[in-house]
Amino acid sequence: MPSQPFVTISSRDNPLFKQIAKLQQSGRFRKEAGLSVLEGVRLCLDAAASGCRFQKLIVSKSAYAAEPAVGALAAAADECFALEDRLFAKLSDTVSPQGVICVFEPPKWELSIRPNGRYVALERLQDPSNLGAISRTAEALGIDGLILSVDACDPFSPKSLRASMGALVRLPVLRPREFLSFLREIPLPVYACVVEKTAKSVGRVDFSGGGIALIGNEAKGLSSGALAASDERITIPMPGRAESLNAAVAASIVMWEMVRE
Amino acid sequence: MPSQPFVTISSRDNPLFKQIAKLQQSGRFRKEAGLSVLEGVRLCLDAAASGCRFQKLIVSKSAYAAEPAVGALAAAADECFALEDRLFAKLSDTVSPQGVICVFEPPKWELSIRPNGRYVALERLQDPSNLGAISRTAEALGIDGLILSVDACDPFSPKSLRASMGALVRLPVLRPREFLSFLREIPLPVYACVVEKTAKSVGRVDFSGGGIALIGNEAKGLSSGALAASDERITIPMPGRAESLNAAVAASIVMWEMVRE
Repeated sequence: MPSQPFVTISSRDNPLFKQIAKLQQSGRFRKEAGLSVLEGVRLCLDAAASGCRFQKLIVSKSAYAAEPAVGALAAAADECFALEDRLFAKLSDTVSPQGVICVFEPPKWELSIRPNGRYVALERLQDPSNLGAISRTAEALGIDGLILSVDACDPFSPKSLRASMGALVRLPVLRPREFLSFLREIPLPVYACVVEKTAKSVGRVDFSGGGIALIGNEAKGLSSGALAASDERITIPMPGRAESLNAAVAASIVMWEMVRE
Repeated sequence: MPSQPFVTISSRDNPLFKQIAKLQQSGRFRKEAGLSVLEGVRLCLDAAASGCRFQKLIVSKSAYAAEPAVGALAAAADECFALEDRLFAKLSDTVSPQGVICVFEPPKWELSIRPNGRYVALERLQDPSNLGAISRTAEALGIDGLILSVDACDPFSPKSLRASMGALVRLPVLRPREFLSFLREIPLPVYACVVEKTAKSVGRVDFSGGGIALIGNEAKGLSSGALAASDERITIPMPGRAESLNAAVAASIVMWEMVRE
């Protein structure tokens, strides 16, 4: 049982209850508040272990009574709250809630580009599950950071964070206001990943000096501006019948090539 | 408007209605019937274009009236049925039904192992979305076939088929009764994919003579029997903090290495 005091929330009219519901649902609200939410024992524990501080910890009464991790999570939180299971269920973004949500301030990264660094730039990526999967792979393979266009999906949405297994709390993620001019200013080659038979195979690119892999929207690919801003077009050769790879799979193969020895 | 006659189904008590509902839901029923279902215009059109013959085509009244593909699909079907949209919605496995379902007999493959061939063997893979994603990548990269253990998830479930973008209708898929003895009999090296720092990096394996990549369950990995049946343990080095890659991502990187020139 945690030693820290937990304040009880007993109504859906409670302002904090309303705030968390909005943080779960609205990207715009998350942006305005400068806050996001993590849900689930493992995700929250991982974030705390990575040094993430929680503004608030919210647990269900069941989790308060029986979840062994609540003590450790409370130690990483400025304020702690408990609420009835049926109220918690209304806040949860999952089908089987584990009874743990925390509110945190997403890390603000200032990416210092590393010489010979390997980065992935995502233009207009739409699906939070793809963004999460890409960041999970990026972290595992040792990619130095992600660069997102402002019109890409929210890296701190509950879906992205869950699919990333928490990697999005730890991996440097930049969202420059001017995506393409930002890319042009980085002194590293930019490789546009395309589905074109004439582009160079990613297996023949020399990434030993580092570089940026530029990946586009799931359906539309890269914009003409992005293609113009890149140094070379690269592709994953597909001899089979299928026309394309899943965006997260294609990005993972490219990232693997970037770090492969 | 298709020229072929469509029989109207007007009740949930219709035996065909019941059969399709069961085919959508039950792997056991699919196995007993030796049939499966494909849902969605694109999936069904792709299958027809690949030479797949439909035992039955079932469309909603709306699709019958307005979907241009219905004529081509009817031409690939032995029998055609139409039903009211509200009835169709009860058969559909998707949130926004396109109004097209077909019943087909999954292809029965007899895999003739190609010398220097590249195969992926999946032991106890659990998640149909992962199986679908792996087969989509396998087809795109030109992998010769999949070998599934009998306790792996159903390759012809609606979820697997959808995630595969139809690749599972086209790619040779074997389900040998004795998975491990079958693997041992194939005259190709078997590479067990593991998460072990001491295993050989997949980037250093010479796949030029072909081989079988053996991949295990999402949570539990490979069984000890599978490890014993393999010739070498290989791994994707992960210098980052993350402990593992998503199963479909890991399989995709390994398949890419198998075909990479």
